[in-house]
Amino acid sequence: MSYEFAWLDYRKGVASRAADLLKKIALTGFDDAAATDKDILFSAELELKRASRDICGQEAVFVRDEAVSDGINIVFDKSLGLPEGAYGIEIDGTRITVKASSACGILYGVFRALALIRTGRISEKQITEVPTSPIRMLDHWDNPDGSIERGYSGKSFFFRNDHLYVDDRTREYARLVASVGINAVAINNVNVNDIATGLVSGYDRKELAMIAKIFGDYGIKLFISLNFASPMSLGATDTADPLDEGVAQWWKKTTDDLYKDIPGLGGFLVKADSEGRPGPFSYGRTHADGANMLARALAPHNGLLIWRCFVYNCQQDWRDHTMDRARACYDNFIGLDGQFDDNVILQIKNGPMDFQVREPVSPLFGGLKKTNMMVEFQIAQEYTGQQRDICYLIPMFKQVLDFKTYNGEGEGILCDLVTGKGLSRACGMVAVSNTGDDPNWTGHDLAAANLYGFGRLAFDPTLSSEEIADEWSRLTFGYDDTVAEGVSKMLMMSWPAYEKYTSPLGIGWMISPGHHYGPDIEGYEFSPWGTYHRSDRNGLGVERGKTGTCMIDQYNEPIRSIYEGLDTCPDELVLFFHRLPYDHVLKSGKTVIEHIYDSHFEGVLDVEEMIGIWESLKDRIDELRYKRVADRLQGQLRNAKEWRDRINTYYYRHSGVPDKQGRMIY
Amino acid sequence: MSYEFAWLDYRKGVASRAADLLKKIALTGFDDAAATDKDILFSAELELKRASRDICGQEAVFVRDEAVSDGINIVFDKSLGLPEGAYGIEIDGTRITVKASSACGILYGVFRALALIRTGRISEKQITEVPTSPIRMLDHWDNPDGSIERGYSGKSFFFRNDHLYVDDRTREYARLVASVGINAVAINNVNVNDIATGLVSGYDRKELAMIAKIFGDYGIKLFISLNFASPMSLGATDTADPLDEGVAQWWKKTTDDLYKDIPGLGGFLVKADSEGRPGPFSYGRTHADGANMLARALAPHNGLLIWRCFVYNCQQDWRDHTMDRARACYDNFIGLDGQFDDNVILQIKNGPMDFQVREPVSPLFGGLKKTNMMVEFQIAQEYTGQQRDICYLIPMFKQVLDFKTYNGEGEGILCDLVTGKGLSRACGMVAVSNTGDDPNWTGHDLAAANLYGFGRLAFDPTLSSEEIADEWSRLTFGYDDTVAEGVSKMLMMSWPAYEKYTSPLGIGWMISPGHHYGPDIEGYEFSPWGTYHRSDRNGLGVERGKTGTCMIDQYNEPIRSIYEGLDTCPDELVLFFHRLPYDHVLKSGKTVIEHIYDSHFEGVLDVEEMIGIWESLKDRIDELRYKRVADRLQGQLRNAKEWRDRINTYYYRHSGVPDKQGRMIY
Repeated sequence: MSYEFAWLDYRKGVASRAADLLKKIALTGFDDAAATDKDILFSAELELKRASRDICGQEAVFVRDEAVSDGINIVFDKSLGLPEGAYGIEIDGTRITVKASSACGILYGVFRALALIRTGRISEKQITEVPTSPIRMLDHWDNPDGSIERGYSGKSFFFRNDHLYVDDRTREYARLVASVGINAVAINNVNVNDIATGLVSGYDRKELAMIAKIFGDYGIKLFISLNFASPMSLGATDTADPLDEGVAQWWKKTTDDLYKDIPGLGGFLVKADSEGRPGPFSYGRTHADGANMLARALAPHNGLLIWRCFVYNCQQDWRDHTMDRARACYDNFIGLDGQFDDNVILQIKNGPMDFQVREPVSPLFGGLKKTNMMVEFQIAQEYTGQQRDICYLIPMFKQVLDFKTYNGEGEGILCDLVTGKGLSRACGMVAVSNTGDDPNWTGHDLAAANLYGFGRLAFDPTLSSEEIADEWSRLTFGYDDTVAEGVSKMLMMSWPAYEKYTSPLGIGWMISPGHHYGPDIEGYEFSPWGTYHRSDRNGLGVERGKTGTCMIDQYNEPIRSIYEGLDTCPDELVLFFHRLPYDHVLKSGKTVIEHIYDSHFEGVLDVEEMIGIWESLKDRIDELRYKRVADRLQGQLRNAKEWRDRINTYYYRHSGVPDKQGRMIY
Repeated sequence: MSYEFAWLDYRKGVASRAADLLKKIALTGFDDAAATDKDILFSAELELKRASRDICGQEAVFVRDEAVSDGINIVFDKSLGLPEGAYGIEIDGTRITVKASSACGILYGVFRALALIRTGRISEKQITEVPTSPIRMLDHWDNPDGSIERGYSGKSFFFRNDHLYVDDRTREYARLVASVGINAVAINNVNVNDIATGLVSGYDRKELAMIAKIFGDYGIKLFISLNFASPMSLGATDTADPLDEGVAQWWKKTTDDLYKDIPGLGGFLVKADSEGRPGPFSYGRTHADGANMLARALAPHNGLLIWRCFVYNCQQDWRDHTMDRARACYDNFIGLDGQFDDNVILQIKNGPMDFQVREPVSPLFGGLKKTNMMVEFQIAQEYTGQQRDICYLIPMFKQVLDFKTYNGEGEGILCDLVTGKGLSRACGMVAVSNTGDDPNWTGHDLAAANLYGFGRLAFDPTLSSEEIADEWSRLTFGYDDTVAEGVSKMLMMSWPAYEKYTSPLGIGWMISPGHHYGPDIEGYEFSPWGTYHRSDRNGLGVERGKTGTCMIDQYNEPIRSIYEGLDTCPDELVLFFHRLPYDHVLKSGKTVIEHIYDSHFEGVLDVEEMIGIWESLKDRIDELRYKRVADRLQGQLRNAKEWRDRINTYYYRHSGVPDKQGRMIY
């Protein structure tokens, strides 16, 4: 498939007065750099050439190791002592200077400077940016056959016909994600089946090394998702017991071999004992046993072992009201705190369930005190509209990152915990990627804002959702205030809109099983997945407080008390934590049933408003992208109406309460 | 796949005292028969050889054209004037005589005589059997890729890897179904896609002719399901308009060519304008236009055109309460009565919906007065347990055949209408087949009783369900009264049991969408398929009487009044026709909600009883078949419990009415 350049299309989005800066560029310290740095510096240089050519119509005049007074100075200087990836930018009107002490810092600084030029933000200033999160990662759930689990943007561009595939798009991808600071990428699905098992032990090694090299040119570490039972699956051992000496030896040798070919490998990502995947439980071992065994194979190479905490019973009996999936992540891992090696990171989903439109923050973040943690987001819109509906997720991620866990002495802001603030821990942020081989990378053009935004946020979580939306819009659709305002407004209203027309008040899971698009209110109600709302004629919800599953007790005070109390629990989460009658009065003053009706009618109106905004921008956006988005908006409207009508009908049938405003309920 | 011999395994099921009869066999009139008869007579002769060899350990002594006094006499004599397929059997203790005027009559008579011998029913008697139904047909929904739509017994044995496939199993199949009187078979799915479209126009013609020949040896006419848009799909025309001269010409030439290679072809079967299939509606033509155009291509060859009446809107909006799928079949065809050519037969599903466990009889049978009709049953257990649960359907078919439609002067018994009693119409009975390449043909061993029973019933609808069950059991499991009683009891209780633990009181459609196994109570509730129960906190059902969709008006009096009146409508259909509150008192004296709870608890107990019966037969049945059935019974028990618990929970949640007996509702 052909591809577009997303927010890096330099033919779009340039503030005219800035163009002159791109005519003269000075590179300092590049030629003396170490070999490994040179490749990254070269990517930065290429980027400047490409930008100057596309923006000015001709390539800049490049000078080396001498400053220019009217243009751009790029200064690579280790003696400045800036941290890895950090950069400084000084703007004084006729000159921009980018400085960094690391090659990555130069690369990020160049991308940043170009963005400032394109968005016209070149009034005098001096900024220093230090990446907040040490690891800023994307997980791709791509399968060797070219399919993407939960992929909504076409097929894989890493795999095709059971083989890795390397072409110019591989580099374009690296460029795209490096431009927002991504420095780690796992290219294969965490559900590692068949052929993918062999990736660690030689399958398509040449291509794997090529990808690692291309990634390395953009400061990105390659990670491989692995099958915990690899030595067994590959016939080398008859067990995958992590305490078996033969298994450990196999992993050590396999990892040594791998690093011989790919010295810059980041490490491994593992989904174990989860949804049918093999894991240490099969051998009566703990997840610490499993993770540490692998971590020890990686340690000599400074490799990281990322271990997912998405572990729960997916064979639950719906009749059993005592079991609560929301408890599982905490219950499975809290007892292992302090038992993991230093190069193990636990990858914890933002919420206790699974990437629903609204969940509380996973209590595990507040529980672990001596364990490296990453937060796992999902920009693949599995449950949030599948890139057919707009759902800008950055505001949700911000809420998660700002959450006070009260872990430790102070407030225990989640962002600090996962970025190792004040510590020198291995940790960071990761998102399940939303890319595929569609020309626009993300299926829905506006879904690219999530890819862009996740990277920006991982680098600098102090950015506001609005800033990110505005910036992305200007870089993507051009230098046009009207477009930027309209698109930003659409993005900012999209998550609330999606929440309004889907499952209410944090209860989740009213989505079609399997494919996860569109409503099926009882679709998960009698399933083995542990996802129930138990609606009846009186009310709905699973009680997770003291009279229920006590899941709320997994939180630290004062969070615990806030969630426990009906008068303190935030409305948007109240049905996550409590079972309530339809006539319960929310803090908003509405009853539950009124909220259900109102929010569902409002959600559809919100979509209509978004359509109106988009239509108002018709003449300001190129026809191809205008039409693509316009078509998807019509689909979103149909989807929103279906959700509205089914949910309202379902609850009218149960509650018997008519809508106060007499709106149509079928 | 290897195969077993089902009820034709002569090593099983022989009353010992009868064996001597098989030592001497006289064939009379065979050698002088016409060429076309000879092939069928030869099949009969082969059968006698096989039976004598397997039962007596050595082949019978055969004599020709002279009677034997202590053995079997088979007399083919056209001058007797017996109708096509009919036979007489005289038993006088030391001698059995089978007489017929048609080769098929001889074949059926031989199979019948052998069954009488094996079941020990050879006390002195004289019987004459005339097949009641002119066409006794099986429709296979087999696809060229080897899959079977709604197949629960393995893959196709007609198709493999996009080609027809002929081997010894083809003949064994013909033998099996001819043994119960089947004389017409459509081998390919009525949803005719891709390659299958070419079957009429030359694709795999050699194999098709071979199959037709093998079928012919057993008196079976081959039918082909066709794609109404064939000439267009195959690129010969740019329309499929039935009134287009080019289209008609194409069909005429194609049919002529086909009959050149396959002179004994029965004709075509068509699903048009149904569930996405092309049809005359696309061109503003009627189904009579479409059917007659094809019938005229067939007429010179005495071919039949069988046209399915399963036509309805499968894109319904659940919000629209005015549309009623149950009306569709009647509404679509009643206006065309008398417009179809003589060699067109309408194939009408037994009920107005789609093979649910309980439906009323389709009102179209009572409406059409000048049109040939066949009734379409489904022994493939699509909605009735998929040959994982036992569901002996013969009692259901009997109820349908016995239904008084009040079409015409008298009671208008449905069986008379579809068998053309008193008329010389082309008509009959058809069942969607339940066979596949599993060794036992039908997946569940006990499902073979439906295949056996449908054929027997089509031949002689006066047989009782119990007689058929007993006979099938003795032929299948051997000459053992205890087994025959146990198996018959299991079969006879199985349909009521399945009905009890699935959707109640005729409402249908609480099954999992798509695959159609197991409960999903709201699975079809918001779908486009026109299948709703609209349960709420007060009650459930779609009103089809005068205050509702008036579908009941499609029936003749007095049926109409019986169904309209709540005090006259039979309990088992009351929720098909009426919307009722949970506290409505049924004729049984129970309220609707009590009935729901009670029947679901009882259904599970029934399955447990069936398991008990089967276990009591353990030492009397060969291990292979005992285990196969025992395993499926455990699956059926799990399924029954899941249905029970989901339905009871669902209606408890809605109604709030506790179970009077305090049984467990989750």
